[in-house]
Amino acid sequence: MSTAVLLLSCPDQKGLVARIAGFVFDHGGNIIHADHHTDFETELFLTRIEWAMDEFDLSREALIEAVADLARELEATAELHFSDKLARLAVWVTKQDHCLLDLIWRVEAGELHAEIPVIISNHRDLEPLAARHGIEFRHFEIRKENKADQEKLQLELLRDMNIDLVVLAKYMRILSADFLREFPTVINIHHSFLPAFAGANPYRRAHNRGVKIIGATAHYATAELDDGPIIDQDVARVSHRDSVGELIRRGRDLERLVLARAVRFHLANRVLVYRNRTVIFD
Amino acid sequence: MSTAVLLLSCPDQKGLVARIAGFVFDHGGNIIHADHHTDFETELFLTRIEWAMDEFDLSREALIEAVADLARELEATAELHFSDKLARLAVWVTKQDHCLLDLIWRVEAGELHAEIPVIISNHRDLEPLAARHGIEFRHFEIRKENKADQEKLQLELLRDMNIDLVVLAKYMRILSADFLREFPTVINIHHSFLPAFAGANPYRRAHNRGVKIIGATAHYATAELDDGPIIDQDVARVSHRDSVGELIRRGRDLERLVLARAVRFHLANRVLVYRNRTVIFD
Amino acid sequence: MSTAVLLLSCPDQKGLVARIAGFVFDHGGNIIHADHHTDFETELFLTRIEWAMDEFDLSREALIEAVADLARELEATAELHFSDKLARLAVWVTKQDHCLLDLIWRVEAGELHAEIPVIISNHRDLEPLAARHGIEFRHFEIRKENKADQEKLQLELLRDMNIDLVVLAKYMRILSADFLREFPTVINIHHSFLPAFAGANPYRRAHNRGVKIIGATAHYATAELDDGPIIDQDVARVSHRDSVGELIRRGRDLERLVLARAVRFHLANRVLVYRNRTVIFD
Amino acid sequence: MSTAVLLLSCPDQKGLVARIAGFVFDHGGNIIHADHHTDFETELFLTRIEWAMDEFDLSREALIEAVADLARELEATAELHFSDKLARLAVWVTKQDHCLLDLIWRVEAGELHAEIPVIISNHRDLEPLAARHGIEFRHFEIRKENKADQEKLQLELLRDMNIDLVVLAKYMRILSADFLREFPTVINIHHSFLPAFAGANPYRRAHNRGVKIIGATAHYATAELDDGPIIDQDVARVSHRDSVGELIRRGRDLERLVLARAVRFHLANRVLVYRNRTVIFD
Repeated sequence: MSTAVLLLSCPDQKGLVARIAGFVFDHGGNIIHADHHTDFETELFLTRIEWAMDEFDLSREALIEAVADLARELEATAELHFSDKLARLAVWVTKQDHCLLDLIWRVEAGELHAEIPVIISNHRDLEPLAARHGIEFRHFEIRKENKADQEKLQLELLRDMNIDLVVLAKYMRILSADFLREFPTVINIHHSFLPAFAGANPYRRAHNRGVKIIGATAHYATAELDDGPIIDQDVARVSHRDSVGELIRRGRDLERLVLARAVRFHLANRVLVYRNRTVIFD
Repeated sequence: MSTAVLLLSCPDQKGLVARIAGFVFDHGGNIIHADHHTDFETELFLTRIEWAMDEFDLSREALIEAVADLARELEATAELHFSDKLARLAVWVTKQDHCLLDLIWRVEAGELHAEIPVIISNHRDLEPLAARHGIEFRHFEIRKENKADQEKLQLELLRDMNIDLVVLAKYMRILSADFLREFPTVINIHHSFLPAFAGANPYRRAHNRGVKIIGATAHYATAELDDGPIIDQDVARVSHRDSVGELIRRGRDLERLVLARAVRFHLANRVLVYRNRTVIFD
Repeated sequence: MSTAVLLLSCPDQKGLVARIAGFVFDHGGNIIHADHHTDFETELFLTRIEWAMDEFDLSREALIEAVADLARELEATAELHFSDKLARLAVWVTKQDHCLLDLIWRVEAGELHAEIPVIISNHRDLEPLAARHGIEFRHFEIRKENKADQEKLQLELLRDMNIDLVVLAKYMRILSADFLREFPTVINIHHSFLPAFAGANPYRRAHNRGVKIIGATAHYATAELDDGPIIDQDVARVSHRDSVGELIRRGRDLERLVLARAVRFHLANRVLVYRNRTVIFD
Repeated sequence: MSTAVLLLSCPDQKGLVARIAGFVFDHGGNIIHADHHTDFETELFLTRIEWAMDEFDLSREALIEAVADLARELEATAELHFSDKLARLAVWVTKQDHCLLDLIWRVEAGELHAEIPVIISNHRDLEPLAARHGIEFRHFEIRKENKADQEKLQLELLRDMNIDLVVLAKYMRILSADFLREFPTVINIHHSFLPAFAGANPYRRAHNRGVKIIGATAHYATAELDDGPIIDQDVARVSHRDSVGELIRRGRDLERLVLARAVRFHLANRVLVYRNRTVIFD
């Protein structure tokens, strides 16, 4: 069954739930998920509504226009998605394979409604893995002096391949602000419980600080390092018995689970970003 | 600000969100919380809507009637609550004080929107604690042969004191089916991760079984022992180093947290029961 | 660096730590891990000691004899392992691949000190996966009337291939008591928080019961279904929004993590079984 | 049963477990807990040994000397404690009562082997609570210009009352480096997952950052704010639905549990500090 998902945020006012649900009902849509959130501090109303398209009386084109009208009326920011669209992911890696393998397995197992047409890396280590799964592998060597040029080529590739989402699956480098302006839909996994241990070597620093819990954070990448809107986080209890190597090993399990959950939320159009924060309509 | 809360479940059909939100809007209500759930297996729609009463154009009496009409129209089961109602709790205990103390503290701290006019027990151990907090203490000795009679007196007391909710805060006995038919709004805390270790001595049995995680479960009491609708559960990791006594000690923290959360959900009218399960609109 | 691991349990008495640590020291062993547990209920002393073999003055053969002498002296049950032994695993599956893939990845990544020479299944579904990783795949069709014969062939295979550990990675059938008597070192993953929902369809039953937390349990298989010594468990919070299908999906992540941890503990010789319980020396 | 606890750390060398356990055994001590940890990075050996004193053949005075000799021999730092010593706690508060109440309840329930002879505060709000539990309440108004003088009086009070441990139970001010030099045994609870959100208003900052998990940290106070050795941490999952007020409410449960666990570990002499980190022998 094909559905439409409307993600909308606008200044709060009376009657919004009725107005939006009424819009769907008036056109014959059967709502299968509706969740609303009011942020009372900012007086913002945020909603996600999903309905079956099979008895809906507007064509997709007409719906797109109608949503634009609704957004204007409510001074809203609105996104419209259709569940039958298979998202196209570009997964960026360096040398570690665990997050990539996990994403591939979830796509193959049908857990993620997506396809992975390309893997991009600044190293060649994971090329055989890509080959084994029949995924195109593109190597971009990145040095300080060629980074801007390489990013242009990467952006071109994303456009040519109709990529919807970039997933940084332990890609140990930063994308430039220019890149993110051109292609802003990028999910990164950081191997710490942000905002603790942003930046390099979080497990080493966590070990030195003597924390009793480690974590991982999936967030949308922004120009500021490790400061984008957080989608999901998780933690694991550790002890004095755990060396840095042990933290790294245990962190891998956190990283792949948290990244997979974040990608899943995103692909199900369950994430709404506002003011550097996310609403997760789960 | 006073609000009304409508908890409603009915057979699923098109337009329910619009119908119910429209009803609130048409009478000038500003929705501050709306959450819906569709159980596709049973084709049941369940919703919780909360709105501000200050600009609402129906009196409470008229609203009660209007909700009854709505429920008839939708073949729904509906409950209507007003947030300015201070719930009256009767807390039942035996000898352990931790859950009781926790509830008292949360009431005094304003975490629970309720008052505790009476503590009921089959032992006198906690009478001084009740006195210290200025709460009436009623002792009912329970033996096999007097249980039915005592329960009648207890029911009378609940009626006389206008009790809304009975909380079994480590009351180590079972209420009869007759009692629960008369007064069905009873929350119990069981010191295991149900359905594991229902019945007596769960920590001893958990220890013997060698589990690596223990738990606690808050549920509505039903005539069948430890089988009522689960409101909340939580767990804690244990190890071979934990003796039964240690499990009991650690379990106390679980018990009071889980019970407090369940009572809080109930008092905020966030729990909807159907088919021996709960929907928690959190 | 090669190490020896001694796992020993015996009636408690004074001086055991000194006696055992002294034994290692007297022969030039440098202890790198020593953990003891006293079960005061059963008056049992249990210990795990690991030491470097490089300056140890006994040969392995002499050490084996010396440990046997020590065990006799202390009326102990003792196991001796050497860390340079690469364990040989037979992984048994039916149709689901997630636990198997996870184990393969961890072996390839060096997280598990083992090799997987063979995958055994009652179905052919995962044969291509085995081929892709260069692992022998053996299919044994199991029907009521041929089960005993097939198990004999399976036991023969385990012997021929020098298998140390059988891992039931979502093998949806039961091994007979006869099989387990012949080959007792079998780890199973059960998709519930045991002892809750032992047996078939645990997610469906968890959903029907309306639990708020689901779990997975790794345990040594015994002749009694889902009743063997528990090695590890973990849980995940669920809600009314989670369908049975969603529980199954989320459970897969629990299953593979819990199974991997249990296999890892076992392979590191960190598990000591007594009275149907485990001590995990972590 | 009275026991002795030896906490010892020294440069690693062969034979330490045998040497220390042998020392206890040679004097007739029955070890009931022995746990060792080797930090391979710093080549440090750390151990906790606890044994029954009833058949031990050294007097306490002789034992103290013998331990001093042992420490000299091993170039070790050693602490010796006797379990029959009832620790005397000074609990410092400002206006919030939840951590204080929790500690009082645990002392009264026998969960903490301690007494609380005095509560110290810079405000008078909790004086009635102290009175209700028969605990002396001492008010020290703290202003910038009198802080040094007040701290001198506080130190005098701690000495006069033979206080063993200061617990900062939501004391919202910092103790000076001078104070901590004089009285270094101070446990603080910080209402964030350190090192994230050190300093003021952690819940507000956590909310603004949009984290999905909040935490609390118990640590030994040092002159550097929120930077002392971490004893315990815990976390709770939150969502966009949680306002700052809700984070504060949920944080209170974390704070009291984490603080109580840390105090409990400390009182059981299970904490060994080295290099601004802790080993928890649990």
